[in-house]
Amino acid sequence: MTVLLVALLLLLWPGPGSEGGRVLVCPVDGSHWLHMQVLVKELHARGHQVTVLRSSTSWYILENSPHYTSITVQQDTQQSIESAETMSRFLHRSLELRKERGPLSFLAFYSNFFDMLSETYGTVAELARTLLTDRALMQKLQEARFDLVLTDPALPIGAMVAHYLQLPLVLNVRWVLSMDVHFAIAPSPLSYIPQVLSTNTDRMDFLQRLSNVLYHGLSLYIHHFITNPPFQAMCQEVFPPGINALSLIQAADLWLVRVDFVFEFPRPVMPNLVYVGGFHCRPAQPLPPELEDFMQSSGEHGVVLMSLGTFVRGLQPHISEVIASAFARLPQKVVWRHLGQRPSTLGNNTLLLDWLPQNDLLGHPKTRAFVTHGGTNGIYEAIYHAVPVLGLPLIFDQMDNMVRMEARGAGIVLDVMALEVDSLTQALRDILDEQKPYRDNMRRLSRLHRDRPIEPLDSALFWIEFVMRHGGAGHLRTESYRMPWYAYHNLDVLALLLGSAVTLLLLIGATCRCLCQRLCRTRKVKLQ
Amino acid sequence: MTVLLVALLLLLWPGPGSEGGRVLVCPVDGSHWLHMQVLVKELHARGHQVTVLRSSTSWYILENSPHYTSITVQQDTQQSIESAETMSRFLHRSLELRKERGPLSFLAFYSNFFDMLSETYGTVAELARTLLTDRALMQKLQEARFDLVLTDPALPIGAMVAHYLQLPLVLNVRWVLSMDVHFAIAPSPLSYIPQVLSTNTDRMDFLQRLSNVLYHGLSLYIHHFITNPPFQAMCQEVFPPGINALSLIQAADLWLVRVDFVFEFPRPVMPNLVYVGGFHCRPAQPLPPELEDFMQSSGEHGVVLMSLGTFVRGLQPHISEVIASAFARLPQKVVWRHLGQRPSTLGNNTLLLDWLPQNDLLGHPKTRAFVTHGGTNGIYEAIYHAVPVLGLPLIFDQMDNMVRMEARGAGIVLDVMALEVDSLTQALRDILDEQKPYRDNMRRLSRLHRDRPIEPLDSALFWIEFVMRHGGAGHLRTESYRMPWYAYHNLDVLALLLGSAVTLLLLIGATCRCLCQRLCRTRKVKLQ
Repeated sequence: MTVLLVALLLLLWPGPGSEGGRVLVCPVDGSHWLHMQVLVKELHARGHQVTVLRSSTSWYILENSPHYTSITVQQDTQQSIESAETMSRFLHRSLELRKERGPLSFLAFYSNFFDMLSETYGTVAELARTLLTDRALMQKLQEARFDLVLTDPALPIGAMVAHYLQLPLVLNVRWVLSMDVHFAIAPSPLSYIPQVLSTNTDRMDFLQRLSNVLYHGLSLYIHHFITNPPFQAMCQEVFPPGINALSLIQAADLWLVRVDFVFEFPRPVMPNLVYVGGFHCRPAQPLPPELEDFMQSSGEHGVVLMSLGTFVRGLQPHISEVIASAFARLPQKVVWRHLGQRPSTLGNNTLLLDWLPQNDLLGHPKTRAFVTHGGTNGIYEAIYHAVPVLGLPLIFDQMDNMVRMEARGAGIVLDVMALEVDSLTQALRDILDEQKPYRDNMRRLSRLHRDRPIEPLDSALFWIEFVMRHGGAGHLRTESYRMPWYAYHNLDVLALLLGSAVTLLLLIGATCRCLCQRLCRTRKVKLQ
Repeated sequence: MTVLLVALLLLLWPGPGSEGGRVLVCPVDGSHWLHMQVLVKELHARGHQVTVLRSSTSWYILENSPHYTSITVQQDTQQSIESAETMSRFLHRSLELRKERGPLSFLAFYSNFFDMLSETYGTVAELARTLLTDRALMQKLQEARFDLVLTDPALPIGAMVAHYLQLPLVLNVRWVLSMDVHFAIAPSPLSYIPQVLSTNTDRMDFLQRLSNVLYHGLSLYIHHFITNPPFQAMCQEVFPPGINALSLIQAADLWLVRVDFVFEFPRPVMPNLVYVGGFHCRPAQPLPPELEDFMQSSGEHGVVLMSLGTFVRGLQPHISEVIASAFARLPQKVVWRHLGQRPSTLGNNTLLLDWLPQNDLLGHPKTRAFVTHGGTNGIYEAIYHAVPVLGLPLIFDQMDNMVRMEARGAGIVLDVMALEVDSLTQALRDILDEQKPYRDNMRRLSRLHRDRPIEPLDSALFWIEFVMRHGGAGHLRTESYRMPWYAYHNLDVLALLLGSAVTLLLLIGATCRCLCQRLCRTRKVKLQ
C-alpha cells in the first residue's frame, strides 16, 4: 500500500522544476547582488541546486554559503582595485560637474560617464574572456548539466555563458541601458517613453520630446560605440559570426523585470516579461533592542530614516554638515546610515549608524519619511511600507527613479550639490506634513502595489521553474530581433509601394502629356 | 467579545470588491455571450450584483436568470429580422465568392464584407441611440451606482455607456478589429504582427509582409469609413466634441484579453492587459448515458467530434454529403453537430446531434480529433483537452485562428468550398495518426497552456475586483492615445531636427561658397 502511495505521489509530482533543478547563476556584484540573493535563497529553499559564478575579487558575493555552491573565476586583484578607483573617481567627478551649468559641463559630464563605462566594460569583457576560454572550467560547467542560467543582463557575461552551454536563459533585470533592446522588450515610442537619464516623465511637451530623442541618440551611442566593442571582440573569438552581446540578451527565454507600474510609467511590454517589482520586500522584522528603544523615544513625532545606498562610501563633509544641521532642526528623531567623518553640526536627535536594517526600519510604525539616493531597492521598500521619500539622487538611474516618485506626488527631489539648510529643512517639513499629499499618495501607491493575485517572489519562482519544466519559453518570445533591421521596419515594402506609386504617377503623367500632344497636333492639323 | 470579533472582521474585510460590488454588463450577442456568461456567473457566485443590458430581440441573452438582473432595451423586431437576414446573406455570398479566384472576386468578397459591417454597425448605432437618449433609463442606471461597466468592445455600446455614467471600464475582448487600437494595446510592427484576415503568420517573407501592409490599410479603411461613421454621429449627439467610439475603448481601465500565447503569436502588449485565454474551459463533466454508450462503442479507434459553432445554421447539402462520405470511411465513430437536411451518404458510425456538450466531449478520453470552423472558444477547449484540430474555417477570424494552429503543428486546414471526399479522408487520417506530430504537438500546447500560476478565470475575477476596489486602474494605462497623432509619432521633433540639419548644411555651403568667392577675387586681384 505504502509503495503504491509513493508510486502515485511520484507520478503526480510536477515536472523537473519541483523535483529540484540545477540552476547556474551569473550575478552582477554590488547592490545588484542584493536582489539576486533573494532569488538564490528562495531557489535553494525550494530544493533546487544553485551554483553561483563569482569573481575572486567580489565585494559582496561570498565564496561559501549555505544556499549555493560557488565557482570562482580568477580576476587580477590589481585590475579590481583599479576598477574600484575608476568608479570612485567617476562618482566624484560626476558630482563636481553637476555643480556647473551649461552645455560644456553637460558634455564633460557625459564624457566622464562614457570613460567610466568604457573602462568598466573593458574589465568585464576581460573577465568574460578568462571564463569562456578556460576549457577545463567550461567542460566542468557542461558536465554539471544545468537546467538554466539565471543572470542580470547589466553585464552580458551570463548571456554568453548560457549561449555557450546552450541552456535556457532567464534574466533578472530592471531595464537594460539601451533602448535598442526594444526588439526583445517591445517597441518604445519616444513620444511617451522617457529615456534613461533624461529625467523626463511620460507626459512631455515639445522640448521634452526633443530632449528625449536626443537622449535616445546618446543611448544608442553608448551601446554601439562604448559597451558593445569589448564584447564584440569576445563574441568573435568564441562564437560563430553574427552573434553579439545584444542578440544574446534578446534571445532570453524570460525577463523577470523588477518593475511595478505604481512606480514605473506604463509602456509596451512583451509576453515573456514577468513583473516582479518589489519581490525583495517583506514585512518588517523586530529591530535590535537599542534601535527599537531609539525609535520609541521619538514619541508622536516619529523618525526620519536616511541612507544613500551601498554605492556611496561617504558624502563630502560640507554636504554632511548641511544635512546634519537640517536634521537638528526637526522635532523628529533621525536614523542616518553615515560613513565618513562625523558632522560637527549633528543634533541630539540624530543617530549615526554605518549599517542599518533598512526594510525593517521602513516598516516600523514610527517611521515617517525616508531620505534616499533613489535606488530602486529602497524605493520599492518605501512603497511597500508606505513611507514618503525625499530624494538626493547621485548617479545612474537614481534621478529617473526620483522623477517617477515626484510625478506620483509621493516624493520631493533636491539637488545634493546645491543643498542649503533652509530649503532642505523646508523639504523635510513638507514631506513630514500629514496635511500635504505625500503620505496619502504613498499610501495609495502601497495599497495598489500590495494588491496582486500572486506575490512577486512566488511569480518569479513559478516562471523560473516553468522554464526548467519545459526547457525554455520560446512560445512567449517574438523572434523579430533576428530580422534584418530594414525588414523589421518594413523599409523594403515601403520602398516598393512608394516606387510603385511614383511609377504610376509618372506613367499617368506621361500618358496625359502624350494625349495632350496628340490632341494639340490633331487640332493644329485641323486648323491648318 | 463577539462584538469585538465582528468589528475586527469588518476592519480586516478587503475593499468593496469582496463586499459585493455592482457590475453593469453590456454584452455582445451570439457566441460572444458564451464566455461573457462565464464571467457573469462567477461574479454572481462571488457575491456581486450583476445587471445585464440586453436587446429585446436578443437570441441568447435571456431576460430572466438566477445570475443577473436584466434591463431590456427595446429594438424594432423587423430591424432585428433584417439584421439576421443580412448576416445570413453575407455568409452565403462570402462562401460563394471563396470558390472564385482572382482580384475581382477578392474585391467582391470585401465589398460584401464592408456592406455587412456597414449595415450591422448602423443597426447597433441605432440601438445605442435608443439607449443613450432614453433619459429615464439613463437616470435609473445613474441611480443604481454601479462600480464598473464590463463589456465586449466588438461593439462600442458598453464603452459609451461607461463614459456616460463616468464609470471604470473593463473589456472582455479577444482583439478588436482595427489595429488602430495599438494606441491603447501596444504598437504593432507590421513586419511580424499578422493583420486580421491576412492569414499571415509571425514569420513573413517579403510578399507576405507586403500583403500584411495592404491588409493593415484595409483595417484602417474599415474603421475610418465603415464602422466609425454611425457611432461618430452618436457621439456628437451625446458627448462633448473630441470623443469617438475608438477613444472610448482606448480609455478602458483594463483589458481582459482572451489570449494565450500557446495559441496567439507573441506580440507587444500593454500593462493593463490581463491574459485570460481559455478561461471558459473546465474539466469534462459526465456525458448523458446514451452519448457515453456511443463513445464507449468506438473501442480502441475512438471518436471524431465535429461542430461548426453557433453562427452557421447549416452547410450546403453537397458539402455535407462530402463530409458524411469521408466520415463513413473512417474506423472511428463520429459525433457531428449537424443542422439541416440529413446527408444521404451518412455512415453507420456517425451520430448527428443538433446540440452537443462540446467541452465535455472534447475532454472525453475516447475523443481523438476535432473538426471545427476555428472559432476561438472551441480552439481553446481543444487545446485545454489536447485534441488536434481539422479546420474548415468559414468567416471572420476563423481562418486566422486555424493558421495559428497549423503554424504550431497542431492542426490541418482545408477549404470548405473545395472539399473532396479523398482529400478530406486523407486529412482526417493524418490528424488521427499517432505517428504524425499533430497529437504530440497539441499535448505540448496543452501542457504549456495549463501550467500557470493562477487560473485565467480567477485572474479575470481578481482584476475586475481590483478595478472595483480602487475605482479604476489608471496607473496601468498609458495616456498616449490622447496625444495628437503627429506628436505620438514625434513628427514635429523630426521636422525640427531635419530642418536644423538642412539649415546647418545650407549655412556651411553658403559660407564655403562665400569664402571661395573671396579667395578667387583676391587671387584675381593679385593676378591683375
